[in-house]
Amino acid sequence: MIYLDHNATTPPSAGVVQAVLATMTDVWGNASSQHPHGQQAKGALGAARASVARVLGCKPSETIFTSGATEANHLAVLGLHAAARHAGRGRIVFSAVEHAGHLALAQALIAQRLPVDFIGVNADGTLDLDSAARAIGPDVAVVSLMAANNETGVLMPVDDVRALAQAAGARLHVDATQFVGKAPFDFARFGADAVSLSAHKLGGPKGIGALLLRQGIALQPQLHGSQERRRRGGTENLPAVAGFAAALEGLGDVAAKASRIAQLRDALEQGLQRALPHVHVFAAGAPRVAGTSYLRFGALPAEVVLQRLEQLGVCASSGAACSSGGSEPSHVLTAMGVPRDEALAAVRLSLGATTSARDIDYLLAALPPLLAPLLENDAAHAA
Amino acid sequence: MIYLDHNATTPPSAGVVQAVLATMTDVWGNASSQHPHGQQAKGALGAARASVARVLGCKPSETIFTSGATEANHLAVLGLHAAARHAGRGRIVFSAVEHAGHLALAQALIAQRLPVDFIGVNADGTLDLDSAARAIGPDVAVVSLMAANNETGVLMPVDDVRALAQAAGARLHVDATQFVGKAPFDFARFGADAVSLSAHKLGGPKGIGALLLRQGIALQPQLHGSQERRRRGGTENLPAVAGFAAALEGLGDVAAKASRIAQLRDALEQGLQRALPHVHVFAAGAPRVAGTSYLRFGALPAEVVLQRLEQLGVCASSGAACSSGGSEPSHVLTAMGVPRDEALAAVRLSLGATTSARDIDYLLAALPPLLAPLLENDAAHAA
Repeated sequence: MIYLDHNATTPPSAGVVQAVLATMTDVWGNASSQHPHGQQAKGALGAARASVARVLGCKPSETIFTSGATEANHLAVLGLHAAARHAGRGRIVFSAVEHAGHLALAQALIAQRLPVDFIGVNADGTLDLDSAARAIGPDVAVVSLMAANNETGVLMPVDDVRALAQAAGARLHVDATQFVGKAPFDFARFGADAVSLSAHKLGGPKGIGALLLRQGIALQPQLHGSQERRRRGGTENLPAVAGFAAALEGLGDVAAKASRIAQLRDALEQGLQRALPHVHVFAAGAPRVAGTSYLRFGALPAEVVLQRLEQLGVCASSGAACSSGGSEPSHVLTAMGVPRDEALAAVRLSLGATTSARDIDYLLAALPPLLAPLLENDAAHAA
Repeated sequence: MIYLDHNATTPPSAGVVQAVLATMTDVWGNASSQHPHGQQAKGALGAARASVARVLGCKPSETIFTSGATEANHLAVLGLHAAARHAGRGRIVFSAVEHAGHLALAQALIAQRLPVDFIGVNADGTLDLDSAARAIGPDVAVVSLMAANNETGVLMPVDDVRALAQAAGARLHVDATQFVGKAPFDFARFGADAVSLSAHKLGGPKGIGALLLRQGIALQPQLHGSQERRRRGGTENLPAVAGFAAALEGLGDVAAKASRIAQLRDALEQGLQRALPHVHVFAAGAPRVAGTSYLRFGALPAEVVLQRLEQLGVCASSGAACSSGGSEPSHVLTAMGVPRDEALAAVRLSLGATTSARDIDYLLAALPPLLAPLLENDAAHAA
């Protein structure tokens, strides 16, 4: 089985599994307990936090562990908004291409009659900076923007939006779920007030993520309790935190790995375009994170292509896993102005640490013969 | 090391660790993905959910997996409250002895100017039903009550409060974190609209819990996303769910186990009272869940007793792990009317599945000689 759906989730490495296993077995105490079992857990939690912070370029106290990116995203928007409300700032600004779960939060806030605005994107998937400048004003509490889009891989202009947010006095939250591990990241230099990430997108365990929160930024907790400096209640999930730390430690030279994966991605796209007519890569001209390829084969419906890929033992997706069961076109492609039939043809191939050149060679050899006849029919049909 | 702090957390069994390990290694797909890796995960999630539901006496669709009891408690109160608000029901009622994290939520709601009331307790730790009847009126959206107190072990009168809530048309949420696994539990017969529980309190992994929600009850999600029937967003934490299922399956005959543990608890309390003067067991006369003993040795400060216990290799606590670092008296004992100096003397010994008769015999042999001289001094000092 060739797994080309790394944006949905990634296989945990042996070292990560071992870290979780060892912690569950040997350090199962409650890190809030005062006795030796608890203090052992507290020590291990501190060590794992220090490790996470070191790799991510933040202070240990700036790391708030959550159950994943969804919770971290909610905590950032709701917690920063609640903390800013007293200052007369009520509006929240999202990009129109945030993760579907995050946009569901935006819709829920609108249903609560909170003022919410969206920043549009250009036809190539990049953020519309004019739209951003219009949306970000002095009444804005929080701007929430992803660092890299989960479907297209397009990199968002965090620096530009940070400048707009700073000028308006608004907080900037960045969902870096699809960025950390795929591109060099350093919280201190990143400039956002808060950054979300998820362990299972970078080789770590499921059920753990973090919100990095710049020192001195006020945040109202969304789960109350004494843990995480009263910013996130609930018994600390130490085995998962240990696995998260192991995954981050295991990232190694991210720039070198990203360069390898980007080369494979480019070879894949170019190879498919050489072998088949009508292969269109969405956002091909935009700066993209390594590994993500979002394409269509003429107007072949995604499920037809995915079925052929499955026949070849290749796992891919028609978009985000969280909405891939649906028959609605991707909200990301719709925001880019892609027509419905073209959007319903979109297939996402996302490469990762376990992807080899051989995987790509195999796909380039095996897929075109299966799709070529369909594309000819398709073209004939269209003509 | 003798671990008598099972109310803080419990060691995961070998079967639980194995279930987590095997799932991380073999079924690491995203359960929302449509390809074979995802569908394998979806199948495993369904099987684990069915297993959880079978043991807990609910329907699989009534099970909402969360990151733990804290999140489940928040989801129940906030989600049921938001769903009832349109019907003109705004008030929320908590017992005064809920978990500290849950009371922190209550305080946050008060700070948001929401109407919140508390049900008091009697001197023996049982719920004051007159106070409950006064608090639960027709403007109440949600009543939130724990099934068993985490400090005293006192069982709360769920049936009586359910009757009051039903008469008032209010929803009843029960935090059964310290109940499930310690006493027979069947959601269908339990009668609450929503029940929270946590895996790590019953031999399961950390970072996973559930809110059981009776079919047909409206709940507004607090983390938005497509998972858990749109009631709780975020990639499903399948390894932890599998471990949770294994822990529940491993509970076996809960009534028989509870009976064994209650006998050990009674032997411990009676033995200490025979061997030492001035041993007072809080809530001794109240119905209590098996395994929880909350006591004081005269007015010896808890830290003195805990230090001696640690000397003997025994892990115990001065109360809830989440607040055991502080120097404030327990809010549970304060609500019972226990004077500050007596409350600061409280030590919690909580027994569990791994506790043996030998552990109790050892403690009964070793602790009294260490405490007797201190208690004599204490008594002399007081006299």
